[in-house]
Amino acid sequence: MDTQTVLHYLQNLQSKIVEALELVDGKTFLHDSWNRNEGGGGTSCLLEGGNVFERAGVGFSHVLGNKLPPAATVAHPEAAGRSWEALGVSLVLHPRNPYIPTVHMNIRFFVAKAPAGSENDIASLPLQASQGGELENAQTAQKVRQAFANETNNGAAAKAAEDIWWFGGGMDLTPYYGFEEDCVHFHRTNKTALDPFSPAYYPKFKKQCDEYFYLKHRKEPRGIGGIFFDDFNELGFERSFELQRAVGDSFLNAYLPILQRRKDTPYTELKRDFQAYRRGRYVEFNLVYDRGTLFGLQSNGRTESILMSMPPIVKWRYDWKPEAGSAEAKLYSDFLIDKDWLA
Amino acid sequence: MDTQTVLHYLQNLQSKIVEALELVDGKTFLHDSWNRNEGGGGTSCLLEGGNVFERAGVGFSHVLGNKLPPAATVAHPEAAGRSWEALGVSLVLHPRNPYIPTVHMNIRFFVAKAPAGSENDIASLPLQASQGGELENAQTAQKVRQAFANETNNGAAAKAAEDIWWFGGGMDLTPYYGFEEDCVHFHRTNKTALDPFSPAYYPKFKKQCDEYFYLKHRKEPRGIGGIFFDDFNELGFERSFELQRAVGDSFLNAYLPILQRRKDTPYTELKRDFQAYRRGRYVEFNLVYDRGTLFGLQSNGRTESILMSMPPIVKWRYDWKPEAGSAEAKLYSDFLIDKDWLA
Repeated sequence: MDTQTVLHYLQNLQSKIVEALELVDGKTFLHDSWNRNEGGGGTSCLLEGGNVFERAGVGFSHVLGNKLPPAATVAHPEAAGRSWEALGVSLVLHPRNPYIPTVHMNIRFFVAKAPAGSENDIASLPLQASQGGELENAQTAQKVRQAFANETNNGAAAKAAEDIWWFGGGMDLTPYYGFEEDCVHFHRTNKTALDPFSPAYYPKFKKQCDEYFYLKHRKEPRGIGGIFFDDFNELGFERSFELQRAVGDSFLNAYLPILQRRKDTPYTELKRDFQAYRRGRYVEFNLVYDRGTLFGLQSNGRTESILMSMPPIVKWRYDWKPEAGSAEAKLYSDFLIDKDWLA
Repeated sequence: MDTQTVLHYLQNLQSKIVEALELVDGKTFLHDSWNRNEGGGGTSCLLEGGNVFERAGVGFSHVLGNKLPPAATVAHPEAAGRSWEALGVSLVLHPRNPYIPTVHMNIRFFVAKAPAGSENDIASLPLQASQGGELENAQTAQKVRQAFANETNNGAAAKAAEDIWWFGGGMDLTPYYGFEEDCVHFHRTNKTALDPFSPAYYPKFKKQCDEYFYLKHRKEPRGIGGIFFDDFNELGFERSFELQRAVGDSFLNAYLPILQRRKDTPYTELKRDFQAYRRGRYVEFNLVYDRGTLFGLQSNGRTESILMSMPPIVKWRYDWKPEAGSAEAKLYSDFLIDKDWLA
C-alpha cells in the first residue's frame, strides 16, 4: 500500500483533465490551492462563464483527520473513530449548451489507519525495551506482544489492528436532451476500461451506479448512469490501483467525443430553461443523498470546494410536467429509465 | 387534546394568509389538494410568476403513519415506531424584488399515539369480555389489566402508554438587503405575540431560532432570525394551543408591513443577481439541515409540496465575496450576525 503513488497519480490526472478541458473551452481554469486546519489540503480548479462550460470544477484533495466521522464508515463500522486519510479527484462539468450532458467523475482512495497499540506498534516494543538496556523489560514486552497477538488472532480484533483501505469512484452522465449513441458510447468506454480486470465488474458497477444515483423522493434516476464502485480492495493494492487508473484514464475518452458532437447544436431559451429546471434534480441529489458531499460537510471540509458541483443557474417550479410527445418528455420516457445501454 | 380543533384552526389560517397575499400580489394562488397513500393529505397553495411574489407556497398538510421515522423523534425516542399524526401549515415566500426579504413560517401539531396494548386499550378489556358473556373471561381480563398496570406504573413504561403530543413552529426572515427597522419590526411582533404567555418565551425561542437556522458548513446564519419552538406542551393542551394560535395569527402583522415598505423600491439586475446567489444558501439549509424537509422526504411525503420552499431561480458561484463597503457586504457585517434586535 503506497499512498504517495496514489497521490501522484491523482494530481497528474487532475492536471491532464484540466488541460484537456481548457483546450476545448478556450478559457483557462482558476487554480485555487487551500489548506485545512485539521490536516491536508487540495487544489480546486474552476472555470466559470466559459465558452463551453458555464461552470466546471475539477478538484484534487488530500485530507487527513484524527477521528473518522460516521458518514464514511457505513461499510466499515470498525473504522469509526480512527485516524484517516482521503485522497481524491472529483469533477462536475456543467456545460452551457443544453444538448451537452452534465458529467461527474470521482476517483478516491481511503485509508483508516490501524489504531495506536495495534500489532504494528506492539511489534516494535521488544526493540524499544532492549534499547532501554533492561532484559526484564524486553521479556515483559515480549509477553505483552504475545498476549496481544493472541487477542488479535481472532476475527474483529485482528481486523481492527490492520490498516483499512479502499478505492472508490466512478462516473455518470446526466443529459437534458438525450441521444442514444451518447449513452452507448459512455457505457461502452466504461465497460472497455473494466473488462480487463473481470467481465463481472462492468455490470456490477453499472448496477451500483444506478442504485446510488437515484432520487428516492422523485422515484427518478439522476441521469443515464455509468459506473460506481466503493470499498474496493478485492484485487489487492497493486491491481486495485490499476483498476482505479483504468477508470480515471478513460474519463476524457468517455466524455469528450459526446461534448464535441453536441457543442455546436443551436438551442433556444426554452431548452436552457428546461436545463435549469433539470439541474434542480442535481442539487437535490447532491445535498440530500451524496455521500461525498455529506462526508465533506461533516468533516469540516472546504465548503466552496465541496459545492463546486452545484450548477451555476437552477430553477424550481411547482409540479411541472413536460408536454406529451415533446423532446423534454422523451428524456423521462427514453433515458431516465432502468436500461442496459449495451444490449 | 383535540386534533380536530387544531385542524380547523390550521385550515383557516392557510385560507386567511393566502387571501391576504392575493390582495397584495393581484394574482391568485393555485389550490392543489392531494392525498397520501399511507393516510392523510393536504392542500398546497402556489403562486408562481406573480407581480410581487416570484414564488410563494403556503401548504396545509395532515399526514398519518403507522411507524414514526427516526428524523421526527430526536427529542422523543420513545415515540419511534408508533403510529402518528402530523398537522401543519408551512409557508415560504420568495418575492421578486430583492429589497423584500424572503420569509418562512411554520405551525405544526404532532401526536404519537399510545401503542396498542397500552393502558387505554387494556381498560376496555373487561367490558369486551363481559360482552362475551363469560365471567371467567372477565376475571382473566381483569388480571391481565392489573398485571399490565403494574408494569406500566413505573417510569418509561408508563410514559410509553400515553399519547405523546407537541406543538412546534415559528417564523424567520431572510433579507438580501437588510434594513434595521424591518428586523426590529419582525422581532417586536414575535415578542408581542409571546409575552402574554411568559416573558421568558421570546428570548428562548429567538435563541432557538438562531441555533436552528444556521448553516454550519458556512458558519453563517440563514437570515436575521425570528422565533422557533418545538416539542412544546409545557402549558397543557389548551394554553399551548393558544400560544400556537398567537404565533400563527401574528404572521401577517410581522411580514406585510415590511413587504409594503419595500415592494416599490427600484432595483437593478445586479441586485437580482445577488438575491439569486444568496438564495443558494436557502437551498443549502433546507436540503442539508431542515428537519421538516428531511422528515417529509423520509416519510414518503409529497415531494412537490415539501420542495415548495425552493426558490424559483438560484445561482452558485465559486468562493464569491462582496466588495468591501458595498451594500452586499453590509448584509454580512450588519445583519447575518448574532444580535438582539430589540436591545
